[in-house]
Amino acid sequence: MPVRTRVAVIGAGPAGLLLSHLLGRHGIESVVVDSRSRVEIETTIRAGILEQGTVEILSGSGASDRVLTAGHRHEGIELRFDGEGHRIDFTGSVGRAVWLYPQHEVLKDLIAARLTAGQDLRFGVTAERVEGAETDRPRVLARDAGGHTVEIEADVVVGADGSRSVVRETVTGAYGGSFREYPFAWFGILCEAPPSSEELIYSNSPDGFALISRRGPGVQRMYFQCDPGTDAEAYTEERLWEILRSRVPGVTLNEGPVFQRDVLRFRSFVAHEMRRGRVVLVGDAAHTVPPTGAKGMNLAVADVVVLTEALRALLLDGDESLFGAFSDTARQRVWKAQHFSWWMTSMLHRQPGASDFDHWRQLGELRSVVESAAGRAYLAEGYTGWPLAR
Amino acid sequence: MPVRTRVAVIGAGPAGLLLSHLLGRHGIESVVVDSRSRVEIETTIRAGILEQGTVEILSGSGASDRVLTAGHRHEGIELRFDGEGHRIDFTGSVGRAVWLYPQHEVLKDLIAARLTAGQDLRFGVTAERVEGAETDRPRVLARDAGGHTVEIEADVVVGADGSRSVVRETVTGAYGGSFREYPFAWFGILCEAPPSSEELIYSNSPDGFALISRRGPGVQRMYFQCDPGTDAEAYTEERLWEILRSRVPGVTLNEGPVFQRDVLRFRSFVAHEMRRGRVVLVGDAAHTVPPTGAKGMNLAVADVVVLTEALRALLLDGDESLFGAFSDTARQRVWKAQHFSWWMTSMLHRQPGASDFDHWRQLGELRSVVESAAGRAYLAEGYTGWPLAR
Repeated sequence: MPVRTRVAVIGAGPAGLLLSHLLGRHGIESVVVDSRSRVEIETTIRAGILEQGTVEILSGSGASDRVLTAGHRHEGIELRFDGEGHRIDFTGSVGRAVWLYPQHEVLKDLIAARLTAGQDLRFGVTAERVEGAETDRPRVLARDAGGHTVEIEADVVVGADGSRSVVRETVTGAYGGSFREYPFAWFGILCEAPPSSEELIYSNSPDGFALISRRGPGVQRMYFQCDPGTDAEAYTEERLWEILRSRVPGVTLNEGPVFQRDVLRFRSFVAHEMRRGRVVLVGDAAHTVPPTGAKGMNLAVADVVVLTEALRALLLDGDESLFGAFSDTARQRVWKAQHFSWWMTSMLHRQPGASDFDHWRQLGELRSVVESAAGRAYLAEGYTGWPLAR
Repeated sequence: MPVRTRVAVIGAGPAGLLLSHLLGRHGIESVVVDSRSRVEIETTIRAGILEQGTVEILSGSGASDRVLTAGHRHEGIELRFDGEGHRIDFTGSVGRAVWLYPQHEVLKDLIAARLTAGQDLRFGVTAERVEGAETDRPRVLARDAGGHTVEIEADVVVGADGSRSVVRETVTGAYGGSFREYPFAWFGILCEAPPSSEELIYSNSPDGFALISRRGPGVQRMYFQCDPGTDAEAYTEERLWEILRSRVPGVTLNEGPVFQRDVLRFRSFVAHEMRRGRVVLVGDAAHTVPPTGAKGMNLAVADVVVLTEALRALLLDGDESLFGAFSDTARQRVWKAQHFSWWMTSMLHRQPGASDFDHWRQLGELRSVVESAAGRAYLAEGYTGWPLAR
């Protein structure tokens, strides 16, 4: 016997859980499945810079009030180059801000909200395929932890199952989308030490990019540009600090034991289509961005805001127009965010094989931005996020 | 017997003539030589978009009042992409404007001003080399139209002799500077027809870039992106109009007889040094920009404004500090302008071999700029020109 619901959501990440939460507020029932366990989801540490609009959606919809109390509001960042720091004042230039609040905390809040409301959320259920995209009753075929088949029949199926989405090909076909790989990666560390800086520092140094960030009062998160083939275990701790210090000349770093290290590959992807018939993609399933612009989770939230309106119109009013336009509407913002992420990346990293001209032009660009109120506002606007369609 | 003067200027283009004019206002005598004839200089048609600061210098110093009466003030441009036009309102966003006033008209004004003042300006005199850069009395060795040697001894020698400068190597050594070639060119035409648009149109079309401009009430100047190897005679007039029409979909072009056609190569260059001892480079001798940002002549004027102050301090007050810093000071603006030119170029042209991702990102960037007041202001600021150091 298949499970019957209005919206079947594959993936209990920020996109899937928030969608289900927002639909619930409109009285639209949904089922969310995820192949991972609750513990795994709630303990995987991911980036956490939330745009102002993301915070407003999370707190305004009752999904998370903790973001406002436990998150850190950041009213600016520092861009460093040529041995000097330049503050980009977000609130001063565009009246907006971002919040540092780890993604797994967002997920804890959303899972708690969902279970408290007694809604259907199934961990350890692995979607294998989606059928009937072009019909009015698409189906998800999945398998639970015990190996039993689970079939979910719905009005709409949503693939919110991340960058290795099993739903994607149903929507895009084999062709997929637009893709770009970058010739560098980020070496990330977590270390026990108080923050070296109140605000994030994005540094373009002669040796390459570095980002000085933090996760909590006693934990710093730092990254530096490295070769994509770098082995995370290749460096001694001493060497890691040497590299980091050389990337932020003029800044004194608080050093402490490094307890996690990883190498993050950079890639950009945008699916050509985010909808086929009654099957939809949102978040990382539809697009991935390099981390420099901090847009990943925020873009997932933006997709969900657009899709919620479209599903409300479709399922409550029988109006298909917003749903039909979903892919085009969502992709408008996706490409602005892809550009912003590419811009921050290309302005701040040292491109392997970059010429002398490229290097000086990059510094000319950084100076053009920081010396101009309009340039700073343009950057602040992208970083804090364009207004969400509501 | 050498000619003796305070400043020997090689090149009677905008940079050389304006420098000599501004020095004259401080009572600093100079000699200007150029290998070309007056007629050649006054009839070679070059681009002519003048930044607000350039116009203020020309009119404020008495060099040209005609720019204000015969020039056209433009308070914005149109960016076209995806079949739609978007106005960038210069005056509305940054309170500044540009003027369309052809470069050879600027030169006529400057030559007339110079000759009226009875100052030393020699046509048909070809500089061959500069000696004594590291001494207090550098010398220009030149040859006049009759083949006779002309020697000019000065306190300072200025190379304002364009992109094929004979002075450059004296200043930079063999190493030269930072260089970039672009994988496309502009096919330019002049045609007899009234303007198709009041303001300039910069169009990013699926087939590549086009610029719709004008030279006077009955003459249009239009460009379209082409392969750098294109033969200017390769196309019939009919084909030229076909190409132009396809590059600005939605715009009706006024067509008329094409009386000039040329292919402009794109290159960026910045000399590593703009001064060695008492020999200085200004304008195209020190840097060239692709035409998209309309920065060439304006950058020459900016160099001259900085150099005039430095020479005034050096020659009248014996203060070497500004002169010593000239290269660094001038290069700050040069690299901002190089970036601006590169930005306009890369945002508007179709890169050969561009991926699908690049194409969509470019449209995402254009949308980010035109949808944002800050983005429009940032572009307007660069286009109308950052304030001149005075």
